[in-house]
Amino acid sequence: MAAAERYLQMNARELRFELEERYAAYSAALDEERFEDWPAFFTDDCTYKIIPRENVERGLPLATWFCEGKAGLLDRVVAIRKTMMYAPRYVRRLVTGLRILGWEGEVLAVRANYLALETLLDEPTRIFNCGEYRDRLAVVGGELRFREKLCVFDSLLVPNSVIFPL
Amino acid sequence: MAAAERYLQMNARELRFELEERYAAYSAALDEERFEDWPAFFTDDCTYKIIPRENVERGLPLATWFCEGKAGLLDRVVAIRKTMMYAPRYVRRLVTGLRILGWEGEVLAVRANYLALETLLDEPTRIFNCGEYRDRLAVVGGELRFREKLCVFDSLLVPNSVIFPL
Amino acid sequence: MAAAERYLQMNARELRFELEERYAAYSAALDEERFEDWPAFFTDDCTYKIIPRENVERGLPLATWFCEGKAGLLDRVVAIRKTMMYAPRYVRRLVTGLRILGWEGEVLAVRANYLALETLLDEPTRIFNCGEYRDRLAVVGGELRFREKLCVFDSLLVPNSVIFPL
Repeated sequence: MAAAERYLQMNARELRFELEERYAAYSAALDEERFEDWPAFFTDDCTYKIIPRENVERGLPLATWFCEGKAGLLDRVVAIRKTMMYAPRYVRRLVTGLRILGWEGEVLAVRANYLALETLLDEPTRIFNCGEYRDRLAVVGGELRFREKLCVFDSLLVPNSVIFPL
Repeated sequence: MAAAERYLQMNARELRFELEERYAAYSAALDEERFEDWPAFFTDDCTYKIIPRENVERGLPLATWFCEGKAGLLDRVVAIRKTMMYAPRYVRRLVTGLRILGWEGEVLAVRANYLALETLLDEPTRIFNCGEYRDRLAVVGGELRFREKLCVFDSLLVPNSVIFPL
Repeated sequence: MAAAERYLQMNARELRFELEERYAAYSAALDEERFEDWPAFFTDDCTYKIIPRENVERGLPLATWFCEGKAGLLDRVVAIRKTMMYAPRYVRRLVTGLRILGWEGEVLAVRANYLALETLLDEPTRIFNCGEYRDRLAVVGGELRFREKLCVFDSLLVPNSVIFPL
């Protein structure tokens, strides 16, 4: 609880710094395909969704990806590494416009814009998709982790299916 | 004047934090299509332009958008909501590379890069345009507001006409 | 050495601020085509490379650009200004996700994502390439300068040859 207390007492500037570091580490883990490191950014009871903006705005629950709990994230990692068939690709994530909406009890609401760029072998880099992270973070193990992460993307059309996390 | 004084005495690190928060709030208002909130980011006597880089470099005044005063911005909002005919779309703005050029009296000169991404219904996300914000901000009502905002964009070709602000 | 000492004693928040300012200045110099200002961001004994990610991951040394020392950078500037034939274009760089890996003695290891956008005359803006900066900075002349800068890009295909630095 000491760590939670420490975060709760941070001013906006300190918190922004912590979040910028955290989001940069998150993107780098995925950009560098260290998928095994990905679940550690989440709480055990997390929700992770990749969902079209249109569905969010119409109140439709249908998501492109829906993972419940850290176990759900681990399943995805196994799928990427062992089960799925897909063409090799690089995905790179640019995250900008981080906004701290504030604490809701012991959960911190944060939003940010992201742009995911995809590069397939022997093809030029193209836009994969862009959207907004709508996140809720909690202090667990002395650090901020995602209790909820929604990747709300603008286009219903993505060049291929979503293979890697955003 | 107390608020203006407070901003004038901020060091570069404090000022950068304030501006990052401000620019993130500005982008979010537009990305989320809260256009009614847009004029409040400006001073009453503001100038807002969307102008091709080529025109700026050649000293040509011709702008794609030119709004004078908060009333000019409000006209644009009315046009978006009531007058204009256009296909539904999402526009998302990524802002990076914020630079504080410094105070010119009580006006703060700031620059940043932006990338505007556009998504039309049933189409993949594409680049709308990119360019540089060349801004001058003044402290009004206890906060930094745009007295002048130039959106200087790189390409003379944009996929459609400019419907939403940048 | 006093300046080096000052940087070495900075906490992560202070250092992040310094680097954000530095990277924004670097991008702006290139975006605004002030190529003559570019070498001053580097140490005299610098290495600068633009290299495909695939080569880095396979341990192949082959780079698209390879400049040794500030003299190597100056040669590039001369080439851009006087020697090379190329269609006029604007290139804009968006840098996100800055990460401080830490000090290695008196050298600071830093990474960041970049997206380079290219606009040719009478053409819409397109993705030029994206990748990761893998940098090592040292304190020289009282400021942080690149001793090594690798621009590791995701796609083997770029729309044209690389004309301007990244």
